Amino acid sequence: MPLEPRRTVEELRELQALTGDEHGAQRVAWTETWARARDWLAGTLAELPLEVELDEAGNQWFTLRGRSQQALLIGGHIDSVPNGGWLDGCLNLVAGCEVVRRIAGEGEPPVTVRLVNWADEEGARFGRSLFGSSAAAGSLDDVDELRGRSDAEGRLLPEVLAEHGVDLDRAGEAGRQLEHAAAYLELHIEQGPVLEALGLPLGVVLGTFGVERHRIRFTGQSAHAGSTPMDTRRDALAGAAKLALEIREIAKRTGGGAVCTMGSCVTRPGIVTAVVGECDVLLDQRHLDEAALAGMLQAAEQAARRFAAEEELEVEWERVWRIEPIPFDPDLIELADASIREVAQRSHRLPSGPLHDAAEVARAGVPTAMLFVQSLRGLSHTPLEDTREEELELAVRALDRLATTTIERLGTG
Amino acid sequence: MPLEPRRTVEELRELQALTGDEHGAQRVAWTETWARARDWLAGTLAELPLEVELDEAGNQWFTLRGRSQQALLIGGHIDSVPNGGWLDGCLNLVAGCEVVRRIAGEGEPPVTVRLVNWADEEGARFGRSLFGSSAAAGSLDDVDELRGRSDAEGRLLPEVLAEHGVDLDRAGEAGRQLEHAAAYLELHIEQGPVLEALGLPLGVVLGTFGVERHRIRFTGQSAHAGSTPMDTRRDALAGAAKLALEIREIAKRTGGGAVCTMGSCVTRPGIVTAVVGECDVLLDQRHLDEAALAGMLQAAEQAARRFAAEEELEVEWERVWRIEPIPFDPDLIELADASIREVAQRSHRLPSGPLHDAAEVARAGVPTAMLFVQSLRGLSHTPLEDTREEELELAVRALDRLATTTIERLGTG
Repeated sequence: MPLEPRRTVEELRELQALTGDEHGAQRVAWTETWARARDWLAGTLAELPLEVELDEAGNQWFTLRGRSQQALLIGGHIDSVPNGGWLDGCLNLVAGCEVVRRIAGEGEPPVTVRLVNWADEEGARFGRSLFGSSAAAGSLDDVDELRGRSDAEGRLLPEVLAEHGVDLDRAGEAGRQLEHAAAYLELHIEQGPVLEALGLPLGVVLGTFGVERHRIRFTGQSAHAGSTPMDTRRDALAGAAKLALEIREIAKRTGGGAVCTMGSCVTRPGIVTAVVGECDVLLDQRHLDEAALAGMLQAAEQAARRFAAEEELEVEWERVWRIEPIPFDPDLIELADASIREVAQRSHRLPSGPLHDAAEVARAGVPTAMLFVQSLRGLSHTPLEDTREEELELAVRALDRLATTTIERLGTG
Repeated sequence: MPLEPRRTVEELRELQALTGDEHGAQRVAWTETWARARDWLAGTLAELPLEVELDEAGNQWFTLRGRSQQALLIGGHIDSVPNGGWLDGCLNLVAGCEVVRRIAGEGEPPVTVRLVNWADEEGARFGRSLFGSSAAAGSLDDVDELRGRSDAEGRLLPEVLAEHGVDLDRAGEAGRQLEHAAAYLELHIEQGPVLEALGLPLGVVLGTFGVERHRIRFTGQSAHAGSTPMDTRRDALAGAAKLALEIREIAKRTGGGAVCTMGSCVTRPGIVTAVVGECDVLLDQRHLDEAALAGMLQAAEQAARRFAAEEELEVEWERVWRIEPIPFDPDLIELADASIREVAQRSHRLPSGPLHDAAEVARAGVPTAMLFVQSLRGLSHTPLEDTREEELELAVRALDRLATTTIERLGTG
């Protein structure tokens, strides 16, 4: 069966019609709509000679046995954020379907080829992203903490996962899935504006940014907005405002694609008649280089201390999460670059700001490569997320080409 | 009966024991605890020859008939915020009780003397402060809007008021209470740090600040924190942060006691992984001078437009509330100043940042004066609110002295 990239676009539209509404994609993991999307995925592959399996972490595996146990993995996630876009996560899977169809049509491949639909990449319901791929990669080290997590309606994570056949305490057993994994490929929309700005459809990803995430609390003194003279205030928002502006300077000074984001600012008491007594902000810092990332964190900490002193505030830092930079496989990066140039003449190498399941797989030691296809206006996690159809088709061709050259490499490796 | 300022302190402690708990005062208007506080107040005055009346707005009046219909009013509010302090509002009433006792003990006064307990000064339950005094002053012009207001539990304002004998549609009839009002006196804790910083127990209030309150929305573009380069961001929080810092400069440049406060900052989507797409802040600006207040508002608007342009944001202003500066009566200010100097040697004149029922009464054209007694650490609306007992006693003496000189003035006026 020859590759039909057009079919990928049509299937993506079909999935969106089935699992989206006027507000966007609604395939939030561990919901009925997500389950429907997984069934749809299994249905589109039903005619192929694949072994189908749901593992202990809820990951869905489709395996085309080859002459060797050694396996090429192609992965993505069908779950979305609420009111999400039509491409984030599922593009990888639907394009992967097309590639597997093409390979299966050519008879028994030299190596085993597996398509994996990772469970709960987004963490939209319980705030734990990369759940399924972490479980498989052996880095789900927060099970005890996850046991107590609940969703917005107060339903506990273990209870909800159980409804989808997942026993949280056994999720780590999914690790056996990576035993024979020899390479992992993932195609994803860029979710950023870089390729569009360069006028390029496709790029190869160098790795995922290391991330430092902190909750920072400035504590001053809540006081009456009418009766407290300006010069006697200890305004927690002032510290936070200075830091919100300074983190941008830190990112610019650091360079190398550095990004720093203050995505949340919560004021208490948070009323119009009171000086802010307590202000919690969330800081997210990312860099592909470990030392540069550490330097950015240190600079932000120093700045926060300085601002706290200027404003007579207390400041406390609490690490919410961190992950080291995860570089992808140099050989596979070369192959990916070549595949892109073959289908689109020009390529570009860039880091990935967002995390992806690919990072978990790479952390587990599986040689990994990732392709990005251009995102229009860099938008994602919104129904406005879009990529031109012709570029989606090019992306399927590049992924297919990369699968072919990777299989060749594995055969001779 | 001679004035016994010590009794005021004891009665305040008694009221706190009756209506407070370990978290502070709980006399939120239109609750059972508030009703209990009103009954307690009536009880402490039961032995005096007073006419007692609940008016159409829920205000509680205690009238000592004098030789003239012309009335001196002494007012306060027994309602508190949740977890409030032991003095805010009720000090005025309990001190007023002592003054009325002293006057009643001297036989029929030359003018009628009335103590009024205004209903719902704080607006803690339904967000409408100065309810009772507005109704009496004829400025309760938001009845239609209030009809739809509900408390945190979803109970509608008219329904809850009815349980306390108030028909919202008839509340304005309380206006008849001010018919013969010739002067209004109010004693209140400062709720700010000015008198403490000056080492003074008492001050006389020049009037209440004019207030401009706005909700300001900065709109940028929510974008992925990892994939969006710093130079392509439209970060709504950046606009808000610049404004949070600039309003302080505006207040300082304006001077004359100007205050500007950003008490609330809400970020959307408000998650650690996204650049802030929309940021709503609340701005409160106050000044005793109308023109200075207008200038501060204009400066803030200009600054917000400039920051929006710098950050490529949209900015929208919505007025939440405004009130003009309300100066108190010059003659009564002189009398108040003299009373303070008599009991405490030194006085200080200051504007009131917080609004008070006195502002509503003054707006209605009744000559008004207000005394402030020092607040320790400027704290209010918290169980930490406090004033030294000896200064409370001085405050009772000053109010009593002011009542005497005001009655003399009315008699000769």
